[in-house]
Amino acid sequence: MTRVAVVGGAGYIGGDLIRILLGHPEVELVAATSRTLAGRRVDGAHPNLRGLTDLTFVEPDRLGRCDVLFTAVPHRESMGQLGRFAALTDLLIDLSGDFRLRDPEVFAAYYGVEHTAPGELASFTPGLPELHRKELIGADRISVPGCMATAAVLALHPAAVEGLVTGEVTVDARTGSSGSGVSAGAENLHAERSGALRVFAPHGHRHEAEIAQATGLPTRMTATGVEAVRGVQVLCRVALADGADERALRAAYRRHYADEPFVRVVAHKRGQYRYPEPKLLSGSNFCDVGFAVDPAARHALLIGALDNLVKGGGGGAVQSMNVRMGWPERTGLGFPGLHP
Amino acid sequence: MTRVAVVGGAGYIGGDLIRILLGHPEVELVAATSRTLAGRRVDGAHPNLRGLTDLTFVEPDRLGRCDVLFTAVPHRESMGQLGRFAALTDLLIDLSGDFRLRDPEVFAAYYGVEHTAPGELASFTPGLPELHRKELIGADRISVPGCMATAAVLALHPAAVEGLVTGEVTVDARTGSSGSGVSAGAENLHAERSGALRVFAPHGHRHEAEIAQATGLPTRMTATGVEAVRGVQVLCRVALADGADERALRAAYRRHYADEPFVRVVAHKRGQYRYPEPKLLSGSNFCDVGFAVDPAARHALLIGALDNLVKGGGGGAVQSMNVRMGWPERTGLGFPGLHP
Amino acid sequence: MTRVAVVGGAGYIGGDLIRILLGHPEVELVAATSRTLAGRRVDGAHPNLRGLTDLTFVEPDRLGRCDVLFTAVPHRESMGQLGRFAALTDLLIDLSGDFRLRDPEVFAAYYGVEHTAPGELASFTPGLPELHRKELIGADRISVPGCMATAAVLALHPAAVEGLVTGEVTVDARTGSSGSGVSAGAENLHAERSGALRVFAPHGHRHEAEIAQATGLPTRMTATGVEAVRGVQVLCRVALADGADERALRAAYRRHYADEPFVRVVAHKRGQYRYPEPKLLSGSNFCDVGFAVDPAARHALLIGALDNLVKGGGGGAVQSMNVRMGWPERTGLGFPGLHP
Amino acid sequence: MTRVAVVGGAGYIGGDLIRILLGHPEVELVAATSRTLAGRRVDGAHPNLRGLTDLTFVEPDRLGRCDVLFTAVPHRESMGQLGRFAALTDLLIDLSGDFRLRDPEVFAAYYGVEHTAPGELASFTPGLPELHRKELIGADRISVPGCMATAAVLALHPAAVEGLVTGEVTVDARTGSSGSGVSAGAENLHAERSGALRVFAPHGHRHEAEIAQATGLPTRMTATGVEAVRGVQVLCRVALADGADERALRAAYRRHYADEPFVRVVAHKRGQYRYPEPKLLSGSNFCDVGFAVDPAARHALLIGALDNLVKGGGGGAVQSMNVRMGWPERTGLGFPGLHP
Repeated sequence: MTRVAVVGGAGYIGGDLIRILLGHPEVELVAATSRTLAGRRVDGAHPNLRGLTDLTFVEPDRLGRCDVLFTAVPHRESMGQLGRFAALTDLLIDLSGDFRLRDPEVFAAYYGVEHTAPGELASFTPGLPELHRKELIGADRISVPGCMATAAVLALHPAAVEGLVTGEVTVDARTGSSGSGVSAGAENLHAERSGALRVFAPHGHRHEAEIAQATGLPTRMTATGVEAVRGVQVLCRVALADGADERALRAAYRRHYADEPFVRVVAHKRGQYRYPEPKLLSGSNFCDVGFAVDPAARHALLIGALDNLVKGGGGGAVQSMNVRMGWPERTGLGFPGLHP
Repeated sequence: MTRVAVVGGAGYIGGDLIRILLGHPEVELVAATSRTLAGRRVDGAHPNLRGLTDLTFVEPDRLGRCDVLFTAVPHRESMGQLGRFAALTDLLIDLSGDFRLRDPEVFAAYYGVEHTAPGELASFTPGLPELHRKELIGADRISVPGCMATAAVLALHPAAVEGLVTGEVTVDARTGSSGSGVSAGAENLHAERSGALRVFAPHGHRHEAEIAQATGLPTRMTATGVEAVRGVQVLCRVALADGADERALRAAYRRHYADEPFVRVVAHKRGQYRYPEPKLLSGSNFCDVGFAVDPAARHALLIGALDNLVKGGGGGAVQSMNVRMGWPERTGLGFPGLHP
Repeated sequence: MTRVAVVGGAGYIGGDLIRILLGHPEVELVAATSRTLAGRRVDGAHPNLRGLTDLTFVEPDRLGRCDVLFTAVPHRESMGQLGRFAALTDLLIDLSGDFRLRDPEVFAAYYGVEHTAPGELASFTPGLPELHRKELIGADRISVPGCMATAAVLALHPAAVEGLVTGEVTVDARTGSSGSGVSAGAENLHAERSGALRVFAPHGHRHEAEIAQATGLPTRMTATGVEAVRGVQVLCRVALADGADERALRAAYRRHYADEPFVRVVAHKRGQYRYPEPKLLSGSNFCDVGFAVDPAARHALLIGALDNLVKGGGGGAVQSMNVRMGWPERTGLGFPGLHP
Repeated sequence: MTRVAVVGGAGYIGGDLIRILLGHPEVELVAATSRTLAGRRVDGAHPNLRGLTDLTFVEPDRLGRCDVLFTAVPHRESMGQLGRFAALTDLLIDLSGDFRLRDPEVFAAYYGVEHTAPGELASFTPGLPELHRKELIGADRISVPGCMATAAVLALHPAAVEGLVTGEVTVDARTGSSGSGVSAGAENLHAERSGALRVFAPHGHRHEAEIAQATGLPTRMTATGVEAVRGVQVLCRVALADGADERALRAAYRRHYADEPFVRVVAHKRGQYRYPEPKLLSGSNFCDVGFAVDPAARHALLIGALDNLVKGGGGGAVQSMNVRMGWPERTGLGFPGLHP
């Protein structure tokens, strides 16, 4: 069994990662750290795990060696402790924002702090198998992209890489409250956050930079908190390039994603679920992508949806581990989501 | 104009009280206090009031005299400052739990602290016009009952006072998240509280004592937090007394409530809204009450619903003020609630 | 008292119109029609109105004369019966889509049917006092704009009319389930619609044409159903014209809306409610508008929010009636909305 | 591979059963029937299954033989077609209400129709392994109990069978909207059902009879629809028998459920999730049970929670199949549920 550990196991992404790892047949979860809950049971923080584990959280400083280390920590913390983390493991999978952007200047502009380990940026492979499967096979440092970025990149990728779109992308991103994390402030109290349509980032959201980096397209993104706990949906508006049409788009999506285990193309003519919706994806590692072409306007709406804690978090990390370790990519990630 | 002030104006009950008072044609809101937000605009804490007031919060200690003083403060604080509050006004309307129970021993048992002003308990009239209208006319201290207590007392009152029920009442109370207040803890984060069916008081809830006191019936109450921001619903299960039946119940409810401006009897044979539901009552001062008789079992389910911040809070306080001041009882309380 | 009647009183907009009219001090509601519920109590369809009215629905064909007639009917029905409606009243206020677009060809393109009374299109004044107050004073036919259109037009108007924006507007509109109406299909069952982020109109929504008509800006709109019963929010993305900046925008919004009774400018630097959110507006006639400027991109996000059944429906109709009749514009529309 | 089929595959229970069966390593789903959707893809009705199956629905009459047949049909239909269903399979697992009650008179009283196959009632074993594991091993007809009944029976069983409670049980049951089924009426439209606290069965609900039958305790049950799609929670109020106390209850629950794969005892002293909550159980086959003792009153509240479509539907059926076929009981049922 491969021995894995999670740094930052008390958070929402850490918790969902633990859930997935406990059901993964190839790994043994040997430790989960939490500064605030050290010594307490893991299923106290994550009550869905009752009966599945008797593990207790350990102090981050007491973490021992393991085969795979997942770091689900706030940004700054990963780059600050990279040396220590890297020394503990053969394969480091980071879920913070610290190693997602390749350019330290872009990082500084979007995160408002200087990167403290710019020389290490290039050592990380993006944890997005759909774009980086081959590189992941040999990677020993993986950086899992942001949740909204993953949805947008997967929605845009076939169109972008095949030159079917042109100009600037505008991304309208919607996200549930779990994205604010377990230590969110009073503005996330249920009485305040319930029923919200809260434009929390009219521009300049950090995931915007990831989308631009991965697609090569200039990107403008707006982020709104919506009434949901889990779930991300992005609407990406693009202009069609000359010669591009719905048929070409459909062919491109089919070509790129026909064999992808976790991307489904959802672009139907009718039916209530004819475009991607995150409510179908809670707990699932699928990213559904779809498109709608407005022929009159020569525009397309490219839509992506996922569970921010799974495909946009712990699930994406485990999928990347599976690729890296040579295990079947679906291992431990079989839950398809629910309806209704 | 009657000059009114609100102590504890930054809380949810205080805020809804301010909303009602700003629309009340007989009063002028001269001050609202907040320890944490002193100097800040009232509509910063209560953004629904934008455009309706330019008032800023004042320090509690700087509050001046007024004609009517509403104290929307946590329990202990009202009894601790009673002398000061009483000196500031002719009419004191307290929305805390401190003066709801007449018996200091019952208070101590339910609140876990000794009452510090037991001699003043008798000086307060319950702010429930349906049971105490005449006494309210001459009152100069009014204590507004708890939200779940109000719903249960109004649901039970006609049956109890006419001797139609016997034995113990069991109350199953459900409440939205606003009842936890603006300074609720991390367990009330949206991601945790959303979709909850949280049995937070399987027994011993403080409102239980109020129901027993007001109805004279031994009472057992369970309280569950449900997915809602506003709203309380109580299901009161009672045994029918000898000779009591549905016809007698219906007659009793009609007799007691036919002329009540804010109690509606909702007990229909069919239709989706045939029993009281709080979702229809958001923002409204109505308390809907209804009943369903199980003739085989000689049991009845008496149901009450209200908005905990209006009829179970600020609206009940204003209704009591209206009675006390001789104004039409509906003044300032005309909003009927919404559908859908 | 002015005698008013509502055609289509069993629907959601009709019902909210009835609620408002019952609380309006200058009018008497003399009739509400419903084909399916004729002879049944109005408060059966709209249970929030229990205790406020004993009215029963009448057959549409049995409707008599009145001073003001509101027609809250599906599109096609208003134009089909215009002659009959007009003969029944001095002032006709139509809430259908039939008389919102001035150009019959645009109507045909967006509604998929030919307009059957194109010669009458010019006889209607838009029921949007913020843009058409003077014309409304003398109007005897008023057409209330669509809910999403109203939000977008009010969000865009100051910037558009002052030339601060240029190029195409893209509108990302979000709406609650009440917009689908009381006779919505199985795709609107709670189990299906709950938690939805349903892109139901990626392009070509009818309100798009209204926005373009009212602002003079080429418009592309996408509409998504979100988890809410009431409420519309629009995010309008625009390019800033040369010389335009945040200061100019702020000045324009202040200038246009400072004296508007039902438009509030909400564009704060901080705070959880720093942009417009419809959850604060349920039951209210306010349309909150705000903006966020991205100076680097020379773009602005103009945001509007309202309650689709009030400012985007019955409330907008009553506000227009108030203007037309010379009554204070806020009459009957005082409810400010709730928080939390 | 064991060949299984589902009658009634377009419904919500049928759909979740299909989801579970598609992930079950021992079975092959060979057919799913639907009268209305015959010829259409299964993943059209259940969009979460996209990418997991290419199956299309077949006409019920064209169903061939299989090893295990699940019948997820409305009541009356199972008893009406029992002969046909039984002839198609070796193992019949019925999810309707037709074979849950052993006494045809009780059936007639609760269902309002005569049982048409009373002689077959005894041929069915209840699909509740926690109470009937041994009988299930040899069963060839299994009847899965109702969702609220399952929650209540599992919450009550240890206390009932060990004589720790006495007198009548009152059950306060809460359920999400999926319990109304895929063909629910207009009262289940999102705009109507959202935010509901709808007492749809103040007494006489059919599951009441199942609880009384399984526990031997006289039972009174009230059922309320709450704001949720999935999920059942029951609060069972009982009087403690002489000598019974919290310690005895705790011991009884531990004894009965320590080795149960799908029952967890949740009765903590503190923490926000100290009692069972269905929101943690969406998609999971767990039934969480807990208790709270009021020593003063000699009462206990026994609480159960589950996902009505899994443990209270398709999951309970598959668990029973696993027992009957000698497979590990958890096979295909490993998803633990999510937090947050």
